[in-house]
Amino acid sequence: MPGSSSPPFSAESYFATQPPPPGLEQDIAGVKEFVKRQTEEGRKIVLVTSGGTTVPLELNVVRFLDNFSAGTRGATSAEYFLKAGYAVIFMHRQFSLQPFSRHYSHSTNPFLDFLEIDRGPTSQEICVTPSKREDLLQVLALYKAVQAAGTLHTLTFVTVNDYLWLLRAVSQELSTMKRKAMYYLAAAVSDFFLPRQKMSEHKIQSGKGSLHIEMDQVPKILKPMVEDWTGKDGYIVSFKLETDQSLLIPKAQAALRRYGHQVVIGNDLNRRKFEVVFISWKSPKATISEVDSNLNPESRENSFEESWLRIDITDSNQEIEENIIAELVKRHTVWVGEPESAAAP
Amino acid sequence: MPGSSSPPFSAESYFATQPPPPGLEQDIAGVKEFVKRQTEEGRKIVLVTSGGTTVPLELNVVRFLDNFSAGTRGATSAEYFLKAGYAVIFMHRQFSLQPFSRHYSHSTNPFLDFLEIDRGPTSQEICVTPSKREDLLQVLALYKAVQAAGTLHTLTFVTVNDYLWLLRAVSQELSTMKRKAMYYLAAAVSDFFLPRQKMSEHKIQSGKGSLHIEMDQVPKILKPMVEDWTGKDGYIVSFKLETDQSLLIPKAQAALRRYGHQVVIGNDLNRRKFEVVFISWKSPKATISEVDSNLNPESRENSFEESWLRIDITDSNQEIEENIIAELVKRHTVWVGEPESAAAP
Repeated sequence: MPGSSSPPFSAESYFATQPPPPGLEQDIAGVKEFVKRQTEEGRKIVLVTSGGTTVPLELNVVRFLDNFSAGTRGATSAEYFLKAGYAVIFMHRQFSLQPFSRHYSHSTNPFLDFLEIDRGPTSQEICVTPSKREDLLQVLALYKAVQAAGTLHTLTFVTVNDYLWLLRAVSQELSTMKRKAMYYLAAAVSDFFLPRQKMSEHKIQSGKGSLHIEMDQVPKILKPMVEDWTGKDGYIVSFKLETDQSLLIPKAQAALRRYGHQVVIGNDLNRRKFEVVFISWKSPKATISEVDSNLNPESRENSFEESWLRIDITDSNQEIEENIIAELVKRHTVWVGEPESAAAP
Repeated sequence: MPGSSSPPFSAESYFATQPPPPGLEQDIAGVKEFVKRQTEEGRKIVLVTSGGTTVPLELNVVRFLDNFSAGTRGATSAEYFLKAGYAVIFMHRQFSLQPFSRHYSHSTNPFLDFLEIDRGPTSQEICVTPSKREDLLQVLALYKAVQAAGTLHTLTFVTVNDYLWLLRAVSQELSTMKRKAMYYLAAAVSDFFLPRQKMSEHKIQSGKGSLHIEMDQVPKILKPMVEDWTGKDGYIVSFKLETDQSLLIPKAQAALRRYGHQVVIGNDLNRRKFEVVFISWKSPKATISEVDSNLNPESRENSFEESWLRIDITDSNQEIEENIIAELVKRHTVWVGEPESAAAP
């Protein structure tokens, strides 16, 4: 087994040594059925991953390493994909935000605040505060329409191990859709993990001085995802979040070069609500091997284009995800090879 | 500054070296006003802490260590304290469960599922699914009554540093209530932290092999809380969560001996929903110094009593917090020195 002094885990050695989460088979069965039905009904499907992953430090989990993410990007994006006519597999961290209910966070906009009790002479009725009625009606109508159409399928993960097993399985199921599948990887995935074989069974006891944790690197799964799991046909969008803005573009370009997928959306931690940058290949249909054979390393830098999306931060009615999804739907349409007019739902 | 090779942080050196969270002064002002009003209105106050604390690894936080806790124990307990006539300061981890709205988790019981759109000929109305009406009406009535009485004050923390500063400040404000204040410390607080001075400013870059984290111990704050912050008069209840049940009683007794507070509620990670144990001094009114002077170390073990609370796990309508709070209200009444009949709200 790889360790800190051994070579890092590859995707292959990871899945060979780390146990699958319980419930994986049932999750796969659900996805299989969803993909089949959406295919029959002629919809494109997007897999949206959302929220942070945990790294448990103990087998009986009390402590874990986590990544900052409320799941806002993923939940909001899923909603706009649904509006655009996509079927959505929403694979999210347990308790992170979800499409539709995200508008009514228990902390910032608790729904109990806009329900009222109407006390009549003989009975009590629950009604909605008039000023909140229009907004709720809109969200509720969309939610019910999506439920009726059956276009949203939700999956839950907690640990980075759940995430990796689920991502591989869902990608393999979705690969039957070929170019009609999009993969929108908005989850904040840990770069490090603690192999099962190194975990302590019980709660780590304090009182013994300082805590030392030594973790292994999570294998880079984008390359096997592009080349094997999705058979090079999936339209794959990954995210790069940095706090040091100067690293954003070079790291996004490096990711495209290394993994050969279609788009990296770069965002700065403090500007991500109103500014993102799309980094992509200049020729969107170029496959990795074409690019590899046509370009020497120096001219490769010229093969990327960057395109910035910004919204007015003072307008609270705008959500940048609306623009992100509109742009991606356009690009995906080109990728699928359909005429653009056929892309509307 | 203490470090892993230096002596551990004391509460004193902690607060002298770690910066207070922004917003602390405003939080204190709010608590001051709340305590003043509740005192005037003759209510007892309980501080309920709830949810896990994070330990950021970076200044621009992307990664953090966390403790497992949805905040169920704290949110449920706060609700029963409110029902028992207490005023509640609910100091909880951002996004953890809250009293009342906890019944409608977006994951397990999303409220959008039991709202319906009633489409009339000229207008649309939102109404509640009949089967859900009674339960919602009950929760909503309690929620509105608490809002009208102004007996719930909510504070939010994220990091263990937020938690420590807030706990000290709130305890100091509450200490003016003397024995009428209870402190119910249900939050899952990290035992370790990374001193501000050791944090990396930007996101720790991966790709450089394995991750090594070395953390310092969080100072034990129960002793200064008992002796200084609350002036030995507060009725302080702490929790001990273990995964190894054999450690529960000895560790709970050790905590009482070390800190001199009133009750430790012990719970096993896997049995905590239906079984807890109260560990307390045999003579509930004994102060630390009386115990210290009257007992030699050997006979001290005889000075504790343990009392188990269990509920029927097959009855989903029972919540063990109802029994925990009923027991604590009784004990607190004795502590305050009131006749028991005066304890009801």
